[in-house]
Amino acid sequence: MKIAVVAPSCTLKREAAEAVAALAAARGDCELVIHPQCFLSDGHFAGSDGERLAALREAMADPAVDAIWFARGGYGSNRIAAAAVADLPAAAKAKTYLGYSDAGFLLAAFHRAGLDVAHGPMPQDVLRDGGGAAVTRALDWLVRRDPAALEPDLQPPAMAFNLTVLAMLLGTPLEPDLTGVDLLVEEVNEHHYRIDRLMFHVTASANVRGIARLRLGRVSDVPDNDPAFGRDELFIFEEWCGRAGIHFGGRADIGHDAANRVVPFDRSQS
Amino acid sequence: MKIAVVAPSCTLKREAAEAVAALAAARGDCELVIHPQCFLSDGHFAGSDGERLAALREAMADPAVDAIWFARGGYGSNRIAAAAVADLPAAAKAKTYLGYSDAGFLLAAFHRAGLDVAHGPMPQDVLRDGGGAAVTRALDWLVRRDPAALEPDLQPPAMAFNLTVLAMLLGTPLEPDLTGVDLLVEEVNEHHYRIDRLMFHVTASANVRGIARLRLGRVSDVPDNDPAFGRDELFIFEEWCGRAGIHFGGRADIGHDAANRVVPFDRSQS
Repeated sequence: MKIAVVAPSCTLKREAAEAVAALAAARGDCELVIHPQCFLSDGHFAGSDGERLAALREAMADPAVDAIWFARGGYGSNRIAAAAVADLPAAAKAKTYLGYSDAGFLLAAFHRAGLDVAHGPMPQDVLRDGGGAAVTRALDWLVRRDPAALEPDLQPPAMAFNLTVLAMLLGTPLEPDLTGVDLLVEEVNEHHYRIDRLMFHVTASANVRGIARLRLGRVSDVPDNDPAFGRDELFIFEEWCGRAGIHFGGRADIGHDAANRVVPFDRSQS
Repeated sequence: MKIAVVAPSCTLKREAAEAVAALAAARGDCELVIHPQCFLSDGHFAGSDGERLAALREAMADPAVDAIWFARGGYGSNRIAAAAVADLPAAAKAKTYLGYSDAGFLLAAFHRAGLDVAHGPMPQDVLRDGGGAAVTRALDWLVRRDPAALEPDLQPPAMAFNLTVLAMLLGTPLEPDLTGVDLLVEEVNEHHYRIDRLMFHVTASANVRGIARLRLGRVSDVPDNDPAFGRDELFIFEEWCGRAGIHFGGRADIGHDAANRVVPFDRSQS
């Protein structure tokens, strides 16, 4: 299996690329092709919008590529997501696309376009504590659809997003149809008051109110609030789900960490 | 003129209350009534939702109160905004409501409900460098509609919001009709990548695309980006307006600072 790595958001770290390449080579069951665009830098981004889009489209159009693995998050994939799914090349439809965090903009756009996407670990995660396990889990799923890689309580159809990314794609051309979906969300590096505000926004959406249930992944690196916010993310989720008439389905095994499990969007993948 | 101060978001600092009370007393043209609720504390908030709502509704229903001045921003007014405008007491309609930042949720909800609202300085602003001028400007406008207090280039109907607040109220029951509006936005304490992401969200809205023009207030206390984002807020606004076909109207004299000018939402006030 040939897996192309491109970076639609921020620049991939060289040491991450080397560690993941070594890990993939040792497996012997996949060929990892890290696109040179991953190492470009243009301010915040891994190259200009045009450069990031061109690398992504090149990999999408390549019939020899079986899967596209987004290198990392950060910010920026929303800027090219609509263009990425315009006039889809036929070869784009025979691939799997994997990533999370900022790459959620692409998961949404690609799923809308009928492509096969999943929320899960990315190459840069190898730099986390225990990150080798995250990358191995992602490859186990990409290469052989290992069920052990999956989030353990999925009720397909499922989707997963970073909460901020979900909030930001509502009302845009990237917004997916969430009807009947098992929706998992996670968050990183946001104050509890911001999570509360995001939930006000997200749970007001009629589309979100049509989901089957909302599940809470891990919320990590929450900055200190002054004064203490007084409620944790579980309280916040339960309260807003209650206000909006959304079924809260409890915790989910996803997050910005090495334990992050895979959530395929396509019913047939779960 | 009797002006009631309530705190629908966070707790007002005692020293701010004392300084503003002294300033108002020295003017002799208004009576400032600072509701004891302003000093309550419940985690992040100036009292529970019920306590904040009760104080606000009490002031709204009081026929002796001519204006309601939101004490400060922070976060939390969105949690009570819809309830605040339910079954409006008649006395609520004969008042002016002034605030900004998180109070923008109330400005939106109250304007939708037909009340007379304006975006402008709040009591807690007295603690800023030169904050006495901000509070004096607000009172000059509340008491005698001093035209010098107004943002100087308004083309009514105008509205003004914090960018994050605007993004979070889109798609909610608080969202105002922006058709033909001179829309001013400002921001504080957000990374440039977040401002770019918010503009992606906001400019995708058909409602926002129906404005007359978008104007950029001050964007202050932008945290450092690593690496440097590479574009400032002016670039970001011009780019997203260009993408969305929104007329960019240049800079506006509002922001999280002592120079913040008043933007009345009602056509007849400008």
